[in-house]
Amino acid sequence: MKSSHLLSAADLDRDDALRILDTAEELLSVAQRPIKKLPTLRGRTVVNLFFEDSTRTRISFEAAAKRLSADVINFSAKGSSVSKGESLKDTALTLQAMGADAVVIRHPASGAPHRLATSRWMSGAVVNAGDGMHEHPTQALLDAFTMCRHLGDLEGKSITIVGDVLHSRVARSNALLLHTLGADVTLVAPPTLLPVGVETWPVAHSYDLDANLEKADAVMMLRVQRERMNASYFPSAREYSRRFGLDTARMNRMPEHAIVMHPGPMNRGMEITADVADSPRSVIVEQVTNGVAVRMAVLYLLLGGAADADSPEGNA
Amino acid sequence: MKSSHLLSAADLDRDDALRILDTAEELLSVAQRPIKKLPTLRGRTVVNLFFEDSTRTRISFEAAAKRLSADVINFSAKGSSVSKGESLKDTALTLQAMGADAVVIRHPASGAPHRLATSRWMSGAVVNAGDGMHEHPTQALLDAFTMCRHLGDLEGKSITIVGDVLHSRVARSNALLLHTLGADVTLVAPPTLLPVGVETWPVAHSYDLDANLEKADAVMMLRVQRERMNASYFPSAREYSRRFGLDTARMNRMPEHAIVMHPGPMNRGMEITADVADSPRSVIVEQVTNGVAVRMAVLYLLLGGAADADSPEGNA
Amino acid sequence: MKSSHLLSAADLDRDDALRILDTAEELLSVAQRPIKKLPTLRGRTVVNLFFEDSTRTRISFEAAAKRLSADVINFSAKGSSVSKGESLKDTALTLQAMGADAVVIRHPASGAPHRLATSRWMSGAVVNAGDGMHEHPTQALLDAFTMCRHLGDLEGKSITIVGDVLHSRVARSNALLLHTLGADVTLVAPPTLLPVGVETWPVAHSYDLDANLEKADAVMMLRVQRERMNASYFPSAREYSRRFGLDTARMNRMPEHAIVMHPGPMNRGMEITADVADSPRSVIVEQVTNGVAVRMAVLYLLLGGAADADSPEGNA
Repeated sequence: MKSSHLLSAADLDRDDALRILDTAEELLSVAQRPIKKLPTLRGRTVVNLFFEDSTRTRISFEAAAKRLSADVINFSAKGSSVSKGESLKDTALTLQAMGADAVVIRHPASGAPHRLATSRWMSGAVVNAGDGMHEHPTQALLDAFTMCRHLGDLEGKSITIVGDVLHSRVARSNALLLHTLGADVTLVAPPTLLPVGVETWPVAHSYDLDANLEKADAVMMLRVQRERMNASYFPSAREYSRRFGLDTARMNRMPEHAIVMHPGPMNRGMEITADVADSPRSVIVEQVTNGVAVRMAVLYLLLGGAADADSPEGNA
Repeated sequence: MKSSHLLSAADLDRDDALRILDTAEELLSVAQRPIKKLPTLRGRTVVNLFFEDSTRTRISFEAAAKRLSADVINFSAKGSSVSKGESLKDTALTLQAMGADAVVIRHPASGAPHRLATSRWMSGAVVNAGDGMHEHPTQALLDAFTMCRHLGDLEGKSITIVGDVLHSRVARSNALLLHTLGADVTLVAPPTLLPVGVETWPVAHSYDLDANLEKADAVMMLRVQRERMNASYFPSAREYSRRFGLDTARMNRMPEHAIVMHPGPMNRGMEITADVADSPRSVIVEQVTNGVAVRMAVLYLLLGGAADADSPEGNA
Repeated sequence: MKSSHLLSAADLDRDDALRILDTAEELLSVAQRPIKKLPTLRGRTVVNLFFEDSTRTRISFEAAAKRLSADVINFSAKGSSVSKGESLKDTALTLQAMGADAVVIRHPASGAPHRLATSRWMSGAVVNAGDGMHEHPTQALLDAFTMCRHLGDLEGKSITIVGDVLHSRVARSNALLLHTLGADVTLVAPPTLLPVGVETWPVAHSYDLDANLEKADAVMMLRVQRERMNASYFPSAREYSRRFGLDTARMNRMPEHAIVMHPGPMNRGMEITADVADSPRSVIVEQVTNGVAVRMAVLYLLLGGAADADSPEGNA
């Protein structure tokens, strides 16, 4: 990759993105082997630096790194010196000094990964695993990867992203990456859950889910943050569900080839019914599998790709 | 093994149980080598999915898996998406999708491991590491293994299990497995700490510890849950100790070859005196060592045994 | 090493200390290689037994052990059976029985590592990673290592240690080890933050930082525990900073070759200004890097050195 970090989907041009997706395709097969492990990153150390709990994302990165034979150190910032007032700078300098080759960072503050990467505190690679309401680029990559496997080239494909776009780093990263890959994205949400300035994003937006089903090649439902579902945004959870939830009736209006996605964890019965989640059109479980492959690709390209070989198995 | 999971001691027939114990015997020697590691499960991923804290059990499984060269991912459900309301089903689908070859689950609800294993959410192996007041089969296996090493074949041996049987998954799993192996089990407890319907278990029961010492080949003391030691069960801790605790005087009335067991962690001075815990007849520390070997055997047989070879060292 | 544990800097004679430092020098280069890993401790298990949170120290030991190919098991005593009342003895017996080759222990009670090591509960090596206000010997070793790399032989060198000596295990271990290595140590602190009986330590002490800068070859600032900075010790944080903080003006009065040290995490602006912390004379980040090398050396010498070879790479 051109950058030595992965901070934002906006940093990836089409070539970068395709290179990651192609590498992920190659690495996906590793999971099918009797010994699901490549020696590619042996002797490298990946630190999961999590300032927010996110077991799902953490273990996906952990599995990815271990499958490439890296050593993984989990650093939960709770109860650490960070909570004793250590600055992000000193945490970064410490991890760098300990020999971290990559730091996968999850942080409640938008921009924290960027600060880590650009302040020259670290020579290691920084991977953004979700920062505030800003970005979650590996989620967008795994989503794009999953779409490509089902829909082929994304050029001109119609992707509908539905729900609390305002607070969603998943939506933001997806909008950026899908635009780069040539897809036509429509964000669907009640007006109160669309970000101010959405007109300037390279996507369409709408308040009407029903009007955006028939043309969709993929419908991606966002997780509802129950704690945000209060009167200021929306009358009630039931009302939200009625207008913006995906049920079987709505799913049946999608084209036959169209797929249903969700970044997880789902609120079954809220933004998606259990029937839809478990239907053959749902690729939600595949997204998880693809997440490991995409994260392997990202770690491989950032840590091993440039120096060693073009193929992740080249130095096996 | 006939099953691809280990959910309950009741699922193990005599052949299954003996196969696990024989394999554990073979694996026990690995701990004596300079390099305490076999390559058997290299490239396999074992997830420790713990919905309850149990460091002791978790690190025993972790040591067992690592000694077989598996990658281990620890997933503490506290603060995870599970606590954000994700269903057990979606957690299972996620772990499966990430490529977990085995999930070792500890859960406060009886039956959770069974649900995980039988609902086809996972193709990987499920190992019950303790579910509610229901079962803890690897504990029963390590107890049986320890007894066999000291007493030989368990057919016709007298085993006395003493304490809070009502709340003990250890007692339940032991009663089932020891019966399968032909031992004569007597449960000793105050009436309030015996389960309703104990008459239907394949064991004897008694309210009198003293009457059950002289014939015992092994006496297994159960941990007292102090928080349950309230008036509804028993007058006082001291009174409990006096009637159901194992002290030197009582130990001396056991046959000379008989052993003292405890699943740990002990309340020294409560259900067992320090003298007894540290006496040469106590095999409590051996139980811990054997726990690693038995868990290696279970993981080996569930993950590697069928496909690869009959002996865990066969593909070393 | 002569001992099979590392409990106190006082246990190390000059030869022991130099052997560790020489080994660390050799191991430091491992971090520069493409594959930062030696096979030296493959098949050995290192348990990080932490009764207090200390992410920084824990991950330093974890990185060190993994770089030597050991298996690492993290055991945070919070929420464990320990918190259910299990004694340190039973925790030790359990870890021993599970096959721990080394236990790295952090404990709020002074003397806990000593108890673990000397009570014959464990045959494995015990490494003190900080016990109460008592000792933190690997910190002293990494500090000495860092000084040697900059100052050469420490015989006759002047080291000034500044701050809350009373509560600092870092200060205590450093004073002992530096004395062994022939350095002249001066402890600088307000009277209330010097330990009773400091006259009997093999060091000088002073209440005046300014009087101890011009002769110093190294100045080590201790972390201020903000929660201890109350009226009983000192009028105010600002006053503390004014009298005992290291700023650029003070740093400029040190000899040109002299270095600035801090065990971290720093309170920038309190005991050290940001300018000083980031100046070319600061070796604070190097201390972290050296910490991993020193801990590799300690684990190597305790676990692998005697039996296998003189050089950590000898059996690579």
